[in-house]
Amino acid sequence: MINKIGLDLYGGDNAPESTIQGAIFALKNGILKNSELYIIGNLEDKTVFQGHENVHFIEAENTVTNETKPTQVIRLKNSSIYKGCEMLRTGDLDAFVSAGNTGALLSAGTFIAGRLEGIKRPALALALPGKNNKPRILVDAGANSEVKAEHFYDFAREGIAYAKFMDIKNPRVGILNIGTEEEKGTSTVRDAAEILKEKEDIDYVGFVEAREIFGNNFDVLLTDGFTGNNILKTIEGTAYYILDELRSTVNKGGLLTKIGALLMKKSLYSLRSKIDYRQYGGTFFLGVNGHLVKAHGSSDSEAISNAIYVAQKASSENLVSKITL
Amino acid sequence: MINKIGLDLYGGDNAPESTIQGAIFALKNGILKNSELYIIGNLEDKTVFQGHENVHFIEAENTVTNETKPTQVIRLKNSSIYKGCEMLRTGDLDAFVSAGNTGALLSAGTFIAGRLEGIKRPALALALPGKNNKPRILVDAGANSEVKAEHFYDFAREGIAYAKFMDIKNPRVGILNIGTEEEKGTSTVRDAAEILKEKEDIDYVGFVEAREIFGNNFDVLLTDGFTGNNILKTIEGTAYYILDELRSTVNKGGLLTKIGALLMKKSLYSLRSKIDYRQYGGTFFLGVNGHLVKAHGSSDSEAISNAIYVAQKASSENLVSKITL
Repeated sequence: MINKIGLDLYGGDNAPESTIQGAIFALKNGILKNSELYIIGNLEDKTVFQGHENVHFIEAENTVTNETKPTQVIRLKNSSIYKGCEMLRTGDLDAFVSAGNTGALLSAGTFIAGRLEGIKRPALALALPGKNNKPRILVDAGANSEVKAEHFYDFAREGIAYAKFMDIKNPRVGILNIGTEEEKGTSTVRDAAEILKEKEDIDYVGFVEAREIFGNNFDVLLTDGFTGNNILKTIEGTAYYILDELRSTVNKGGLLTKIGALLMKKSLYSLRSKIDYRQYGGTFFLGVNGHLVKAHGSSDSEAISNAIYVAQKASSENLVSKITL
Repeated sequence: MINKIGLDLYGGDNAPESTIQGAIFALKNGILKNSELYIIGNLEDKTVFQGHENVHFIEAENTVTNETKPTQVIRLKNSSIYKGCEMLRTGDLDAFVSAGNTGALLSAGTFIAGRLEGIKRPALALALPGKNNKPRILVDAGANSEVKAEHFYDFAREGIAYAKFMDIKNPRVGILNIGTEEEKGTSTVRDAAEILKEKEDIDYVGFVEAREIFGNNFDVLLTDGFTGNNILKTIEGTAYYILDELRSTVNKGGLLTKIGALLMKKSLYSLRSKIDYRQYGGTFFLGVNGHLVKAHGSSDSEAISNAIYVAQKASSENLVSKITL
C-alpha cells in the first residue's frame, strides 16, 4: 500500500524553511519509501525536490496565522490547512502534517475532515516520557477546554488506540484527579469515572494524581484539554527550570563542581533529551477522519521529519481505524 | 501582643510524634517567644512540655481521619479540627496549625471559623519557588475544585495579601491559561480576566502559561483549585522524576560520571531543597476568619515547626486583616 502524506508548507515559527528541510531529510533517509508526499502551499522554487518522483505540489495560500480563530478557518478555503483537511476527507490523503495554529487545525480537522463515527470530541493525544522508558499517553493535551463526562469515553478510546500504536499492550486507563478517593475532584471527573467503570472495552484503573504522572500505574491518562495543556506546560517549565538552576549552581560553584559537571555532561545531556516529549515527533488529533498530525510550533527540520515519520507509520498501520469500535 | 497559636495534635502521617517533636523544637528555638501554644488533642504524657509555661492543653478527640468527608466534620464537635476552628471563631486563637485532612480542614475553616467579610471562597494559597529566589504565590492550590469567574477576585485579594506577607512589594496578578491570547481557555478564565481588568485594586497582568510558572512576569497566579492542585503535584512529580533519572543515569554511568556526581553532590542537594515548596512551611487557607495553616500531610517535626513559625509570623503581622478591603 502507498501512503499519501500531506505536509503543510506554512505554519510553525521556522516555516517554510524548516518544512522544506524536514521533507528533504525524510526523503533522503527512506522515511517516505512507500509514500507519496504532497506539499501543500505555494512553493516557488521546486527545484530542491528534483529527483524525488514521489513529491507532489498542491497550491494553497498562507492565510492561517497564529491569530486566526478556530471559527475563521472554515472560511479560508484556499489555506493550506483547509486544503489538507479537505484532502483527508476525500481520501486523497491518508495523513496530514502541520506545525500551524493548533486551534485552527483542530477546527479544520473536526469540521472539514470530519469526525469518526461514534466520536463526539476529537482530542490531542500526546506521548509523555516515563519510568522504564515506556511512554504514557495523555488525552486531551489541549484540544477541548470545556468537556462533559461523556467525552471521557471518546478520550479513552482515542488514547487506547494510540497506546497500542506506541506498542503498549492492554493499555490501562486512568483519570487525572486531585486525589484517588471516589469523592475527590469535580463532578465531571466523578461522573466520567462512573461511566468508564461500566465500559467492558476499557481497563479502567481509577483516579491518578499528577505526582504519579511518570509512574507505572497507568498507560493512558485522561483529562480535559485545559488541565491537560497546563500539565504539559508545567512539566516543560519545571524541567527547564531545574536544568537552568543546575547550570547556574554549577556556574557559581568552585572548580571541583565545574569538573564534576564536565564529567557528567553526557548524563545531563541524555537526561535532557529523555524528558523532552518532542522526541516522539508529532502529536495526533485523534477522532478525526484521517491521520492529523500536529508538529510543534517551534519545529525545526528534524522535528518535521519526525512528524512525517509518525504520520507515515500511522498511515501504514491505519491507526485511525482502530479507534472506531 | 501575645499570639495565641493552636496546634492540632492529630492529623498527618507521623502524628502525634512529629507534632510533639515539632512543638518542642519550636519552643526550644525561640519561635514561640511572644506566643501561647495550645495543643489540641488528648496528650497522655504532658511531662515532655514541662518547663514551658506558655504551653496549654485543650482536650479533643482524634475523630477526623483521611476518609472523613468535608461535610462530616461539622458534626464532629469534639474533634481537634472542629475545636481549633471554633477557637479561631471566638478569638481564643489567632492561628491554628493542622497537618490533617485538607478537605475537612477547609470545610471546618469555612463553616466553623467562618469567612472574612466580602469573601465568598477561601482558598489554599501556596508559595512556589522561582527564579531569583523570589517566591510566587499560587491561589487556589486545591481548596475549590469548581469555581466561578467572580471567585477569582477573592483569590486575587487573598494572593496579594499573602504576597505582601512574603515581602513582595506591589504584587502583579496573572491568571493561568493555556495561551496568552484573549480568546484562549475556558469561559471561566475569560470572564475572570474581564472582571480583574476592571478592578483598580488589582495590578492585573493578563494570562500566564504554565511553562512560565517559574518566570518573572507575575507574583500571584490565579487558577481553580482543581487545576492548581494538579499543577502543584505535576511540579513535584516532574522534579522527583528528573532527580531519580539523574541518579539512575549516574548509577549506570562509568567511573568518571560517578566522580562527577560526587563532586556535584552539594549542588544537587541544594537544588533539591530549592525546588521543594515545603521549604516555606505551611500553606494558608486564606479568606477564613483567622490564620488557618495547613501543614503537609507527610510533615516531619521540622515541617511542623516551620508551620508553627509561619503561623506565629502571620499572627504578629495580622495577615488576615490585610485581605479585607
